[in-house]
Amino acid sequence: MSSTGKTLALGDRANGYSLEEIEARLESGKGISGVCKTDLPTPSLLLDLDLFEANVETMARHAASRSIGMRPHSKTHKCPEVARHQMAAGALGISTATVSEAETMAQAGISGLLITSEIADPNKFQRLVRLTRRHPDTMAVVDHPWQAEQMNDAAVEGGVQLNIMLDIDPANRRTGIEAGEPALRLARDVDRLSNLNLRGVHCYCGKSSHVHGFEERRRHSRESMAAPLETFSRMRQEGLPVEIFSGCSTGTYNIDSEIEGITEMQAGSYVFMDLDYRRIGGRGGEVYDDFHPALTVLSTVTSRNLSSQATLDAGLKAFSTDRAFGPRPVGIEGAGFRWGGDEHGILTLEAAGADVRLGDKLEFHPPHCDPTVNLYDRIYCTRGDQVVEVWPILARGHR
Amino acid sequence: MSSTGKTLALGDRANGYSLEEIEARLESGKGISGVCKTDLPTPSLLLDLDLFEANVETMARHAASRSIGMRPHSKTHKCPEVARHQMAAGALGISTATVSEAETMAQAGISGLLITSEIADPNKFQRLVRLTRRHPDTMAVVDHPWQAEQMNDAAVEGGVQLNIMLDIDPANRRTGIEAGEPALRLARDVDRLSNLNLRGVHCYCGKSSHVHGFEERRRHSRESMAAPLETFSRMRQEGLPVEIFSGCSTGTYNIDSEIEGITEMQAGSYVFMDLDYRRIGGRGGEVYDDFHPALTVLSTVTSRNLSSQATLDAGLKAFSTDRAFGPRPVGIEGAGFRWGGDEHGILTLEAAGADVRLGDKLEFHPPHCDPTVNLYDRIYCTRGDQVVEVWPILARGHR
Repeated sequence: MSSTGKTLALGDRANGYSLEEIEARLESGKGISGVCKTDLPTPSLLLDLDLFEANVETMARHAASRSIGMRPHSKTHKCPEVARHQMAAGALGISTATVSEAETMAQAGISGLLITSEIADPNKFQRLVRLTRRHPDTMAVVDHPWQAEQMNDAAVEGGVQLNIMLDIDPANRRTGIEAGEPALRLARDVDRLSNLNLRGVHCYCGKSSHVHGFEERRRHSRESMAAPLETFSRMRQEGLPVEIFSGCSTGTYNIDSEIEGITEMQAGSYVFMDLDYRRIGGRGGEVYDDFHPALTVLSTVTSRNLSSQATLDAGLKAFSTDRAFGPRPVGIEGAGFRWGGDEHGILTLEAAGADVRLGDKLEFHPPHCDPTVNLYDRIYCTRGDQVVEVWPILARGHR
Repeated sequence: MSSTGKTLALGDRANGYSLEEIEARLESGKGISGVCKTDLPTPSLLLDLDLFEANVETMARHAASRSIGMRPHSKTHKCPEVARHQMAAGALGISTATVSEAETMAQAGISGLLITSEIADPNKFQRLVRLTRRHPDTMAVVDHPWQAEQMNDAAVEGGVQLNIMLDIDPANRRTGIEAGEPALRLARDVDRLSNLNLRGVHCYCGKSSHVHGFEERRRHSRESMAAPLETFSRMRQEGLPVEIFSGCSTGTYNIDSEIEGITEMQAGSYVFMDLDYRRIGGRGGEVYDDFHPALTVLSTVTSRNLSSQATLDAGLKAFSTDRAFGPRPVGIEGAGFRWGGDEHGILTLEAAGADVRLGDKLEFHPPHCDPTVNLYDRIYCTRGDQVVEVWPILARGHR
């Protein structure tokens, strides 16, 4: 046996509360105070509030300095509390991936919602109409005349005007209509429909966001945005009532904000950051560190019988697995990670710079923040070692 | 534009209920009837009840015919309704991956719980004690003396006897103590502790479960189980009070049930099945079809501007991504799939045998069932095209 247990005795609590008490306070909606990170059940999702607040402020200042609007994306966090911080920092509204995210944000009092994914379902058209009745500034995207017609029919029946953004494909081959004539034709179609108000162009280039190297990324984003922006300009020349051009990711915030014509940014991941974004390289160097890695997953070492590895209680259900690399432990240089199954992760220690003991609680930076957050029901917010707030991830789950 | 919209008009409902009505009935706890699959919001998780019931029965019959116990694993489904079906088919109890899963099952009235992952946290030792106070037949695993001592201290303080299974590593290098002398020493340690009742051996070989080819898989499982079974036998010879030897996956149910000494099986995935298990090959052929693929994800085609592909509203948050292959559409031969981001999947149609239209709703078999189920809050149960029940996935999320 290579390692003995941690000496934290049963009932030893860093700070007064038992898990039962934490849970009771959560149930009752009361805040928690005096709870230490290590009091929490694992796996848990933690957010360092100091780093998070700095991230929100950095982006808000950048946007203000470039006179560009922010409508940050909630698909990253699905959490009204995060959205409220973004709004307080001057955001025009919140972008959402789904109707249900928009409904959740609206219920929390957030306005200026932009649903950035196409919908193509009678029930979702109806939900969009109901949402717009309560929040008339809600916007949705279309990339096909059929969606526009269906939305118009629903809007007529529901007695509302729907705000529509034309989704143009930046050669991303995911959603969006082709720039140029096809987009112009669809814009005219939308403009002609009685209960649709054409508001602008939506153009998000996921492919640009993770291009490694700042100069390569800048070139990629500028090339991708060129035709859609030219189409936007032609719409304006034609007198179509387009005011907004929304795009931009965390990877391109300081690229797209310098491109003439883009009026607002929908970057989202910057609030949390993740390993994937760290790797793309920044303006100044190999690590993209404009924003702080504020989000971690807390895990317990649950098995420690092999000298070369430690087994954790965090596996495929604790981290998203869509990237080619795993999570990285905070403060343990040289350690590796491999998946050990649904509920297990393996920390490989051959080259690790620190000992790891059975019962230790370790924090990990996730490979990809958005789908990792989606695995949890709440974010434990910390300052130093203290848990100071708990934010429910209200828009998680499919509705 | 390669494809026009589906003609299902707004307000057209296959069967009477609007989504609002479905949701209201769900909220009120009432059942739903007359709701059609296509009425559901997407992405949604569907379970074909006829196939599911056949799977439960097939496994129960096999276990009965081999006189081996079943304690099926709930990490697959996290759903008390599924567990109830397994209990009704003769299961001895339910295996769980986590304390919170066990708590959820216990609250639903399920007994005979076996928590198959090590715990190493003061709060979780306390929770195990509380759970055992209410459900005295609950079992937990240990693979290190420290866990045993901590559990015993908690049991003394809580005034309960804890049932302990010794977790032996089948050369899987994930959890478990080494077979032979190390395991025997730990078994004696556990047996000596005042408030721990040694009940048996836990030995799960994840590596065997997905070995391709029945004969190779049989050889792998027999080799992996040999030393742990020999250790189990030595424990019995020594007079240690071990009765249970629990192991076995869906991939090895008809292998391990023929191995002398294994007393019960904890297979779980067989209730739903997934593409990964289909690929391992069965006793009789290249496709493992002993159990039916009963679980699907329902998705809507939300963008259809390219002739070679259709964009779906199901991406990294709708399917687990831990396998090297993506989901497969039901009934569309030759179509491929690639990930399109958090909320998007791309169906590639170059070689597809059927047309796919904007607004179509398609079902997909998931690559890996357990972490896919974990992304949803409820299972919509169907018979034919009708949704007949809705089962909450109560143990989802980390607690």
